[in-house]
Amino acid sequence: MERLRVGVIGLGGRGYGMLTGEFLRMEDVDITAVCDVYPDRCERAVAAVEAARGNTPFSTTNYHEVLDGGYCDAVYIATAWEFHAEISVAAMRAGVPCGVEVGGAYDLEECYAMVRAYEETQTPFMFMENCCYNKAELLVTSMARAGKFGTVVHCHGAYAHHLSDEITGGNVNRHYRLRNYMNRNCENYPTHELGPIAKLLNINRGNRMVSLVAMSSKSVGLEEYVNEHKDTIDPTLIGKKWAQGDIVTTIIKCAGGETITLKLDTTLPRFYNREFTVQGTKGLYEMGPNMVFLEGMKESFNTSWVYREYHNNAADFEEEFLPKIWKDMTEEQKKGGHGGMDALMLREFVNAVKDRKPMPIDVYDGASWMAITALSERSIALGGAPQEIPDFTHGNWLVREPKDVVEM
Amino acid sequence: MERLRVGVIGLGGRGYGMLTGEFLRMEDVDITAVCDVYPDRCERAVAAVEAARGNTPFSTTNYHEVLDGGYCDAVYIATAWEFHAEISVAAMRAGVPCGVEVGGAYDLEECYAMVRAYEETQTPFMFMENCCYNKAELLVTSMARAGKFGTVVHCHGAYAHHLSDEITGGNVNRHYRLRNYMNRNCENYPTHELGPIAKLLNINRGNRMVSLVAMSSKSVGLEEYVNEHKDTIDPTLIGKKWAQGDIVTTIIKCAGGETITLKLDTTLPRFYNREFTVQGTKGLYEMGPNMVFLEGMKESFNTSWVYREYHNNAADFEEEFLPKIWKDMTEEQKKGGHGGMDALMLREFVNAVKDRKPMPIDVYDGASWMAITALSERSIALGGAPQEIPDFTHGNWLVREPKDVVEM
Repeated sequence: MERLRVGVIGLGGRGYGMLTGEFLRMEDVDITAVCDVYPDRCERAVAAVEAARGNTPFSTTNYHEVLDGGYCDAVYIATAWEFHAEISVAAMRAGVPCGVEVGGAYDLEECYAMVRAYEETQTPFMFMENCCYNKAELLVTSMARAGKFGTVVHCHGAYAHHLSDEITGGNVNRHYRLRNYMNRNCENYPTHELGPIAKLLNINRGNRMVSLVAMSSKSVGLEEYVNEHKDTIDPTLIGKKWAQGDIVTTIIKCAGGETITLKLDTTLPRFYNREFTVQGTKGLYEMGPNMVFLEGMKESFNTSWVYREYHNNAADFEEEFLPKIWKDMTEEQKKGGHGGMDALMLREFVNAVKDRKPMPIDVYDGASWMAITALSERSIALGGAPQEIPDFTHGNWLVREPKDVVEM
Repeated sequence: MERLRVGVIGLGGRGYGMLTGEFLRMEDVDITAVCDVYPDRCERAVAAVEAARGNTPFSTTNYHEVLDGGYCDAVYIATAWEFHAEISVAAMRAGVPCGVEVGGAYDLEECYAMVRAYEETQTPFMFMENCCYNKAELLVTSMARAGKFGTVVHCHGAYAHHLSDEITGGNVNRHYRLRNYMNRNCENYPTHELGPIAKLLNINRGNRMVSLVAMSSKSVGLEEYVNEHKDTIDPTLIGKKWAQGDIVTTIIKCAGGETITLKLDTTLPRFYNREFTVQGTKGLYEMGPNMVFLEGMKESFNTSWVYREYHNNAADFEEEFLPKIWKDMTEEQKKGGHGGMDALMLREFVNAVKDRKPMPIDVYDGASWMAITALSERSIALGGAPQEIPDFTHGNWLVREPKDVVEM
């Protein structure tokens, strides 16, 4: 297969951004179908494809027409969270390889449905977790593989991103976060931090996530935000109480004995941080200051001195440990979405479909990472009660070989 | 009372250090008794008092003799963790005001015993949590009181301090950590981070800690440390398996809806960090970089830029918000233990005893903070099951007025 015919299903901020910013820049990709429940989004996407490439893609508000019409060799699914599982299952059952954007599951059955669809059809499925391709996460995974951190015992990550503006704009910008924050309380977006951690810890490949507990703070941020923006806010939100707690903390225990902690932090004023942290018996990495601390390095009780002294010293390890895929990135490529990681991820997806190779982030990864949302919701509702995390591999995690998303 | 006669019970690293570094520098304090189960420690303490002050304190290996002999107006208790509750109860029942060093409880009954002893005798009791007097914690508490962080919804802290050398030296240096790390798995030292957080959140004074969950990573750090130091290590530790997990994470839910997360991290190579973090609807503070981020400050998706740009900017808030007690500190005082906080804490203790004033960190604080250790042990043993945190105030948290350890 020399060229790949791709359909994009879901044309909101992410879908349209990936269409115009990434897919239309890929020389071996043709966009042959676009789909969204909102016709105006379809029209905008058609126009973008026509302007960039000259062809007019098939356009529909019904994703089944994309899957069943024979228009595409693969689809990229970037709809609202509620439809990720449903559409990916339909794609697999229609025999159309699919890449599905990140988000959490609403119940475990969704996750099992994805796994069943894959196992019964063997249609390629990739969970499109772009942070698995980010430079820092790949550098640190490479260092971990080389033993620089010794035996890894704990990882931490966060989705710390102030989204009050986006969430409260949901009725205007048609964003699915609004209805989720109104009605649910859970770790609603775990995979940006969990994905790279799960890969590092060989989850579903020699290791697995066994159980979790989650607790939520009260919900105050959005209510205060609405009160302070009364002049400009969607008036239907004034006086609204929100279900989603401002900070959700989740602790996951792995079969290998490691713990993973996750923090959801999206409704308070703050700077962006995934807080990716890896701790082992030889040292640690912290993403905020992009800092490596290894056994034998100079310590101090003055913690702020440490943060200044070692700030950005992860860069010192790039020459030896940065995976080739990042070393070879051109400056032009780095200008792509999210510092280049979107382009790397799509390239891996497109190549895997074309070459009929195993997906670097597969349905077992997707199902187990997405399940954290549904399980955190349960745990929070039950006062922090531990929840079993299913083994979606049915025991095959014991025989599946560890495999990184790129060559380390 | 112009001068205070103090007895020091427990003369290991902390007790001897506080005796020589702090008490013997206090002009209105006389050391009239010293006590430790090890006679050589008593002898060393007697010699230190004689050298500094000329008087010979009463010396014994039996703490009851200190409490019942009429030697002291107050005692400072810095024994092994196992005896903090027992000796403080005995002190209160003997009518001797006591300051008890930090550590966790082994069961809830210890905590109740302390509360009962206090309530039945009204003997002054102070929990000697020095970090409640540290500059950063007091600055940030003062900022929180002034509303700079808006409504506070989440706090985090850690005891991140690489102690493998101290722990494995326990048979030689007679340190109680050794037997604890061998046999228990819990958040064994929560109060350095929890104390200041509990004060900030008005725990036991309008708020209370309601429940917790805790999970532990596997235990690898100490075993690897022993293996790599075979030539110099206590040979009885070679091949030893340890009960204590390397990283313990605890999530606490408060009646006010706030969450508190704690991390114990003492057996992996790392720099010291209490990770004191306060998050509210107007901004946040992070201790590592000593960084304040408030609504409206410039953001970036480049997190390491944020850490560089705002590094140590908490200093900019000192003029307006630093409590007087720290503004008035002399350079000489700052040279005292732990940057001056030990001296401030002892001054508050001594003054409260002399003036018969309420203790700034009282038995309800001590009992509830110490209880976290016993409850985390339960939760970990039960796979992360939520544990009720007792209300040691018997409902009086609803009527007790908020009160900071110093004037804000």
